[in-house]
Amino acid sequence: MRGLYFDGTKAIYREDLEKPVPDEGRSLVKILMSAVCNTDKEILKGYRPDFRGIMGHEFVGLVEESEDKSLIGKRVVGEINEVCHECLYCRTGRPHHCSNRTTPGLSKDGCFAEYMILKTENLHVIPDELPTDVAVFTEPLAAAFEILEQVEIPVDTPVAVLGDGRLALCIANVMHLAGAVVTVIGRHDEKLELFKGIANTTKEGKSEGYEVVVEATGTPGGIGQAIGLVRKMGTIVLKSTYADNASVNLSMIPVNEITVVGSRCGPFEPAIKALTEGSIVLPQIEKYDLKDYEKAFASTAFKAGFDFK
Amino acid sequence: MRGLYFDGTKAIYREDLEKPVPDEGRSLVKILMSAVCNTDKEILKGYRPDFRGIMGHEFVGLVEESEDKSLIGKRVVGEINEVCHECLYCRTGRPHHCSNRTTPGLSKDGCFAEYMILKTENLHVIPDELPTDVAVFTEPLAAAFEILEQVEIPVDTPVAVLGDGRLALCIANVMHLAGAVVTVIGRHDEKLELFKGIANTTKEGKSEGYEVVVEATGTPGGIGQAIGLVRKMGTIVLKSTYADNASVNLSMIPVNEITVVGSRCGPFEPAIKALTEGSIVLPQIEKYDLKDYEKAFASTAFKAGFDFK
Repeated sequence: MRGLYFDGTKAIYREDLEKPVPDEGRSLVKILMSAVCNTDKEILKGYRPDFRGIMGHEFVGLVEESEDKSLIGKRVVGEINEVCHECLYCRTGRPHHCSNRTTPGLSKDGCFAEYMILKTENLHVIPDELPTDVAVFTEPLAAAFEILEQVEIPVDTPVAVLGDGRLALCIANVMHLAGAVVTVIGRHDEKLELFKGIANTTKEGKSEGYEVVVEATGTPGGIGQAIGLVRKMGTIVLKSTYADNASVNLSMIPVNEITVVGSRCGPFEPAIKALTEGSIVLPQIEKYDLKDYEKAFASTAFKAGFDFK
Repeated sequence: MRGLYFDGTKAIYREDLEKPVPDEGRSLVKILMSAVCNTDKEILKGYRPDFRGIMGHEFVGLVEESEDKSLIGKRVVGEINEVCHECLYCRTGRPHHCSNRTTPGLSKDGCFAEYMILKTENLHVIPDELPTDVAVFTEPLAAAFEILEQVEIPVDTPVAVLGDGRLALCIANVMHLAGAVVTVIGRHDEKLELFKGIANTTKEGKSEGYEVVVEATGTPGGIGQAIGLVRKMGTIVLKSTYADNASVNLSMIPVNEITVVGSRCGPFEPAIKALTEGSIVLPQIEKYDLKDYEKAFASTAFKAGFDFK
């Protein structure tokens, strides 16, 4: 089959990959569409030097083989952490932090290929009325919904979102849906344009102006900016991961009794529901053939992906 | 009167200071004993470059003048934040983060002097059976009790305390009182000795071993250490304030969905109660004459203070 293989240093387009065979508890999924995440780009920069295999973890697919016969022929999206159900974290209600977890495109074969296998328990069937090229946003949108699992956001809470990229747009949508008064603080006029209708946009936030600040800049400097913008006893949600150290004075965290909540992957069901209901407004995905992966990785579009039709 | 004055760069012992006169809402307190806090030392290193005035904020005193006549002659301790009752933070249940607050020894004259004035509402009368040189620990102990206001600590929760200094000992006591299984991670054998009976002590904690890690090292490196020790989805309580930047990779906060809770001043009443009941075990304070302030600041004792008897 065709697929994009990471050899430890670079991505290689191959047509000689073997179609995977699902083992017990896993299903075979024919990929309809997959999307490039920033993490995929980080892998090419050395984020996971030990990984070898097919890249990618955001996808919509069709179940071809499964022990759960009701799934066969259904369109699905998939949670990315395959977990052991036995470790401390699985046993204490924190399975997505499983000590033994494997993740497609990060530590096992992923979805930039014609087929992938994934634990059946990770699959979520999507409604017929949800188009494939909208459903492909489920995983990044779920990461935004994770914030609502972690932080209470009462209606009319002043919330700032730092950053104007894809994650920021997903977050701003979810905060808007929760009834917050959202201000997006970004640097790029053309990107800020996408937030119209769901948030106020500005290049500079108001010092000590927000009960909640969601840091989604993807840069080490974001935390320092967030500390200046959040109210005392307010909450910063940290979404950014990056390779560099931040040089930052964290003393204001105790002095102002700020709470910093780290936030990563989130629940799929509210994301699927919101996308199906059309209550989330995201730009179209830019589609490429897998052969043109270099163009897809270099794209500055809101989202680039691979169409396997 | 005698007092220790900060001139913007250094501490100066003076005998020519004017005895303060209480204005409306404030009482005149004759200082019986005051104690050196790490913050006082940080001021000498440049933590509050704009401050000029009498240093110190931990004290036990005798009320000499007050509109509340019932207080006169009573021994008191005092909360350090004088607040406005009008700003956003006062109006929204966060008075100790008052935007217009003044703090003895940090932004107004403090307690390293024969007398100080403080808002009457800040004073807490202490029981006769509580000795002055024990009561002087109320403020730092209250800061430890603040953690219980912020973080749920169920009985038997594995809690690590980073640091073996004074704040760490107060915190370990309070965590022990709350029923946590406490491990203190410090560097100094002789200091760790003080924690026997309330905590396990070690020089190296167990990676990913604690649901809650309280960072009380007073150094910029503490947060990085805490990130390595706390369990995924666990909580770090940040108590340290310091002048320097920390160079730290905070990516593990989102990746492991860690919550970081900044924690500062706390409630006086539980601290007074615990000290009165003898349920907190702290070493004796080392007493100095105010003239010998340099020795007091340099002291490596658990706590150094000034005896004004």
